[in-house]
Amino acid sequence: MDGFSFSTEVRVRFAETDAQGIAHHASFVVYLEVARVAYLEAHAGGYQSIRDRGIEALTTEVSVKYHRAAYFDERLTVWTRCTGFRGARFRYEYRIERDGELVAEGHTSHATVDRETYRPVRVPEWLAEAVARAEAPAA
Amino acid sequence: MDGFSFSTEVRVRFAETDAQGIAHHASFVVYLEVARVAYLEAHAGGYQSIRDRGIEALTTEVSVKYHRAAYFDERLTVWTRCTGFRGARFRYEYRIERDGELVAEGHTSHATVDRETYRPVRVPEWLAEAVARAEAPAA
Amino acid sequence: MDGFSFSTEVRVRFAETDAQGIAHHASFVVYLEVARVAYLEAHAGGYQSIRDRGIEALTTEVSVKYHRAAYFDERLTVWTRCTGFRGARFRYEYRIERDGELVAEGHTSHATVDRETYRPVRVPEWLAEAVARAEAPAA
Amino acid sequence: MDGFSFSTEVRVRFAETDAQGIAHHASFVVYLEVARVAYLEAHAGGYQSIRDRGIEALTTEVSVKYHRAAYFDERLTVWTRCTGFRGARFRYEYRIERDGELVAEGHTSHATVDRETYRPVRVPEWLAEAVARAEAPAA
Repeated sequence: MDGFSFSTEVRVRFAETDAQGIAHHASFVVYLEVARVAYLEAHAGGYQSIRDRGIEALTTEVSVKYHRAAYFDERLTVWTRCTGFRGARFRYEYRIERDGELVAEGHTSHATVDRETYRPVRVPEWLAEAVARAEAPAA
Repeated sequence: MDGFSFSTEVRVRFAETDAQGIAHHASFVVYLEVARVAYLEAHAGGYQSIRDRGIEALTTEVSVKYHRAAYFDERLTVWTRCTGFRGARFRYEYRIERDGELVAEGHTSHATVDRETYRPVRVPEWLAEAVARAEAPAA
Repeated sequence: MDGFSFSTEVRVRFAETDAQGIAHHASFVVYLEVARVAYLEAHAGGYQSIRDRGIEALTTEVSVKYHRAAYFDERLTVWTRCTGFRGARFRYEYRIERDGELVAEGHTSHATVDRETYRPVRVPEWLAEAVARAEAPAA
Repeated sequence: MDGFSFSTEVRVRFAETDAQGIAHHASFVVYLEVARVAYLEAHAGGYQSIRDRGIEALTTEVSVKYHRAAYFDERLTVWTRCTGFRGARFRYEYRIERDGELVAEGHTSHATVDRETYRPVRVPEWLAEAVARAEAPAA
């Protein structure tokens, strides 16, 4: 995908469908989270390793545009990139496809906080660097 | 609430919390849906009555900004207004509060489709009128 | 309801329905939890007050029999009783009805643990007594 | 696993955890469904292929015993077997493990119905045979 170098796959669960016969729109918000967790596992030792260092990443914004319905048991590809580290804040962008066709797109914003005090802490250097490496344009 | 004349209440379920000890951000997307259903019940005979006339309202966009965490068993007030009917499209705006304090705000966009063909159909006149009455500024 | 003196009401959310057009069976497990929380609020100061005293109630068993499907927006009555306190264990029984018709029935088992150590602790006396009062047969 | 020849893997999503810091007990009910879908895909052409033939499998009973807590991002192995076809009814048994350690076990019961009329229909011969082959003891 243009501008995206990482993707993960989710499969629509029956429990995630609704009485319209499609994947419920709230399920996509969970798919984005699954993609972030996979992204961090691939690039920064995993979200749990971040939590283990006493940091939580709060979600401060979620935005999804739905272009096509998704159906039970379909495999969706969630293209994911992390952008815009600034102090205690960062942002992800997503593009969800099925067989190359755009199903949904969105972005989320996050703030890193100390796990005990819930006060903002800067995104750790090692995490910012791991993401910068992941998102560096191929030479 | 300034600009809002309708609200409904949700209470954070334990199943909706996450390992950060707060209501998971995807739960709010469901709260917005609960609020839309309550809004339609108050103003337009209920969402089911719309479905019964062969119309589905698809969600085409969801956007939520999270200002404060919400916790298990808290009562949240979801202020809701319907705006911008245009052909087969309409939009809701929301403001979620706890004891008058802003917890989250957001908006959703929807498209009305024929239940069988899933092709766009104009928002029915009676529905547009019911909403217009609901949102009319008090004299 | 015969043998039950407490009930609470839930309403089937659209997000809880599935592509069979009915409330997904896992949603009922959440309804039982909502009912337990309401039960404890009515009889023992609320689940949060139990958590505030350093106790968590883990769920050790869930069993549900589904007799009839439930549909979007329906109001379900969840009859709930707490039985069988024994040391660190207790049990709930449930009967879910719609307009007096049996929709589902079930039971759950729980164990009380210390919130820090997660080791079993006896159900506190005041809680056992509150439940005993709640379940005492009317004279 | 003794008596089980099929397993699938699920990974605990953050959205599935709760404020006890563990995978919420209702999430396991969804894991069992994910396992059934994987089982049918491996042995009988997939659940969707069954739905495509006009048959729905309703869940009539769910029972889970929780032995150990599961945590965010853990990989769980869901051992699954299908037993006891009888007319329009069948049953699954499950054993959920983490690194060979028992986390939970359970069973579900199902009834096959006609998709339009929702009246019971016998489990189709080809499906019963596919399952019988899958569960046949190795020679």
